Amino acid sequence: IREDEFDAFRDEFLELHPYDQAAFFMEQPEEVRFRIYTFLSPEEMADIMENIDLEDIEPFVTEMDPRFAAMSVSEMSTDDAVDILNELDKDVVVSFLTMMDDEAADEVKELLHYEEKTAGSIMTTEYVAIYKTETVINTLRQLRKDAPDAETIYYLYVIDVDKRLVGVLSLRDLIIADDNVLISDVMSEKIVSVSVAEDQEDVAQMMRDYDFLAVPVVDFQHHLLGIITVDDIMDVMDEEASEDYSKLAGVSEMDRPNDSAFISARKRLPWLVILLFLGMLTASLIGRFEETLNQVAVLAIFIPLIAGMGGNTGTQALAVAVRGIATGDYGKQGKAKLVFREAATGLINGLVCGVLITIVIYLWKGEFFLGLLVGLSILATLIVATLAGALVPIIMDKFNIDPAVASGPFITTINDIISILIYFGMANAFMNFLL
Amino acid sequence: IREDEFDAFRDEFLELHPYDQAAFFMEQPEEVRFRIYTFLSPEEMADIMENIDLEDIEPFVTEMDPRFAAMSVSEMSTDDAVDILNELDKDVVVSFLTMMDDEAADEVKELLHYEEKTAGSIMTTEYVAIYKTETVINTLRQLRKDAPDAETIYYLYVIDVDKRLVGVLSLRDLIIADDNVLISDVMSEKIVSVSVAEDQEDVAQMMRDYDFLAVPVVDFQHHLLGIITVDDIMDVMDEEASEDYSKLAGVSEMDRPNDSAFISARKRLPWLVILLFLGMLTASLIGRFEETLNQVAVLAIFIPLIAGMGGNTGTQALAVAVRGIATGDYGKQGKAKLVFREAATGLINGLVCGVLITIVIYLWKGEFFLGLLVGLSILATLIVATLAGALVPIIMDKFNIDPAVASGPFITTINDIISILIYFGMANAFMNFLL
Repeated sequence: IREDEFDAFRDEFLELHPYDQAAFFMEQPEEVRFRIYTFLSPEEMADIMENIDLEDIEPFVTEMDPRFAAMSVSEMSTDDAVDILNELDKDVVVSFLTMMDDEAADEVKELLHYEEKTAGSIMTTEYVAIYKTETVINTLRQLRKDAPDAETIYYLYVIDVDKRLVGVLSLRDLIIADDNVLISDVMSEKIVSVSVAEDQEDVAQMMRDYDFLAVPVVDFQHHLLGIITVDDIMDVMDEEASEDYSKLAGVSEMDRPNDSAFISARKRLPWLVILLFLGMLTASLIGRFEETLNQVAVLAIFIPLIAGMGGNTGTQALAVAVRGIATGDYGKQGKAKLVFREAATGLINGLVCGVLITIVIYLWKGEFFLGLLVGLSILATLIVATLAGALVPIIMDKFNIDPAVASGPFITTINDIISILIYFGMANAFMNFLL
Repeated sequence: IREDEFDAFRDEFLELHPYDQAAFFMEQPEEVRFRIYTFLSPEEMADIMENIDLEDIEPFVTEMDPRFAAMSVSEMSTDDAVDILNELDKDVVVSFLTMMDDEAADEVKELLHYEEKTAGSIMTTEYVAIYKTETVINTLRQLRKDAPDAETIYYLYVIDVDKRLVGVLSLRDLIIADDNVLISDVMSEKIVSVSVAEDQEDVAQMMRDYDFLAVPVVDFQHHLLGIITVDDIMDVMDEEASEDYSKLAGVSEMDRPNDSAFISARKRLPWLVILLFLGMLTASLIGRFEETLNQVAVLAIFIPLIAGMGGNTGTQALAVAVRGIATGDYGKQGKAKLVFREAATGLINGLVCGVLITIVIYLWKGEFFLGLLVGLSILATLIVATLAGALVPIIMDKFNIDPAVASGPFITTINDIISILIYFGMANAFMNFLL
């Protein structure tokens, strides 16, 4: 881009949606990015920064002139500013806070306290609060003034003199109402609010169930602290879904398009190394049955079949239990019911698969007892593996550990071990029939 | 609930948020439900029905008096009504459509054509369209009249005389604007719209990226057909996330709290039976190496280790590729890059795990060549398994099959087979050193 084309380029660039601006910006080489910094206002830069994924933002923020960066952060909505600052080093944050404009810095400081993944950490303080004693027409006038700064004006939160939340009014109802009515007469007193300490996943679940566009956040004395808007909730839903999915697959964090192979490998190696050692444990278990194997070598060929069935059944049960706990569909009694159902499901699946495999092996090898041994092992494995898959996340949840941590590979390997113990244990018991 | 307490109960019940009404309603036994039908208006029933999960709704709709049910469906927003009708049998739908009020029935019939999971199938026709030639004050007046029926009034879609979409105006901007300005002067002409045939997942992705509360749906001549609102998008996101998660775990559909063990078993058995036969294939492959196993029985003890590593690495690569394709983060060139990176990632992980296992087996068993055999097998398995995990979804996507169909258990079992071929192939080559 040449110097003389700058104005035209700037105009065209700013015509784009900030999301597209951000996408374009990130693709540019360093020297073009530095040019872009020179011709954007902090406010325009703030729009772009709000649309860059948090994982990618740190290098951009640190390469800018610090004063420009701090001013841009001041212009962002408070919740997004806090998210960005959370990505930076502690001392960088402190220097940013001193360079930011005072009002924005104060709002940000307040939010920085809240623990990650709570309602407090995703709320914004740019909401519109109105007083219950005002008239509709005055409130509409106030709104015309406040609207440009607020994150949403579609829900208006009604407070009393102590800043306690007493009602809510949608912009829609405000517009329909007659001009001279009091807010207290048209507001709804059935307010659903969340506490600052509430888990962000629970907030997302609630907003989805109740179809809210925004929800107020209050402290334990019901003072209005902020609001959470639906666009932030969509990000939370996406983040939580990705997280559950990654954990089921045994990846600590999803790869990003620009990750190098080394970064990819580092994200997956921890699980692989743990599994390698668990696998060694399995190997040493089988090693104890070397004598049995020497006598009946044919036993070896069914090891992957049985271990695989155990692993897969366990993963199925795990997925059902993790989702069930996450969506809160199973209450306290529900969990006991879930465990019983899983046991019964394992029994049914075990019977079907066990009978099937007994017949297939008999037809294939002509050996009934070998078939029966494998069939019975499958039956026992499927019951135990299904139970293990359901119980592990339930127990973890009981101890307040996120059940999604019980990832697929872990359950799979545990069930490998269980299934092999069952298989060789039975083989030893059946030995007389097999020889 | 006794007869004389009915009025009090009714008032209290209707005070609840419709989501809570629905939750209460579903827990009631049949006779209480029939009582509830008698004291609710179709409009009140519609609110409840909009808040019942689609999977659960069929029995309730069919147990009601058909005329009451049809009237309730008439009162629902069009998109939700269509969703419910899609759950019912064809002939029930036809009889419902004749009993519904004409206007609602026409709107519903229009939407019933659209293919499932497209923008057309989730859009609603209850939007507010305004004319570009109107003034702000007249539009505000019109809005006060239309607001109660519209699904959202926070975005106003501006059309010309041919009903072509020419602009958009947020309620926020309308309120800030001066009374006598023309709509065409304050509207934005940068309209982002989606086509009726667009995949619902792509619409969700877009609304999340651009932070929209609603998006207009147009036909190929840019006529405005409907809008999609963010509350429906949250349901889509949840549905798609659940689907990907289920497929990774090999469950055709997530269990619901009230499913019996038979229903649970039926949802999981298809995969288990397929895996059983794939497992038999693995077994017969190992069977071909029975000679090798008879000579070196110790080989058997590392089968689960190698197969497990292959399966888990494949699942990791699969998850990364499926998510990457779903989020559209990888373009056309990106996919080639992804495959190269996965190959390199497999190589790095294979080297680390391979060297590690060689050393461990040497220290444990004192057998260097056995360790080297297992180590080299792990190296080769991890490279091939990582590549397979990434390639399968990419190829499926190329043929327009949803890549998430390549579920975890499938990749795991394929990689079991590959890894065993590698392991015994190498064992045969190394045989002289092992004996």
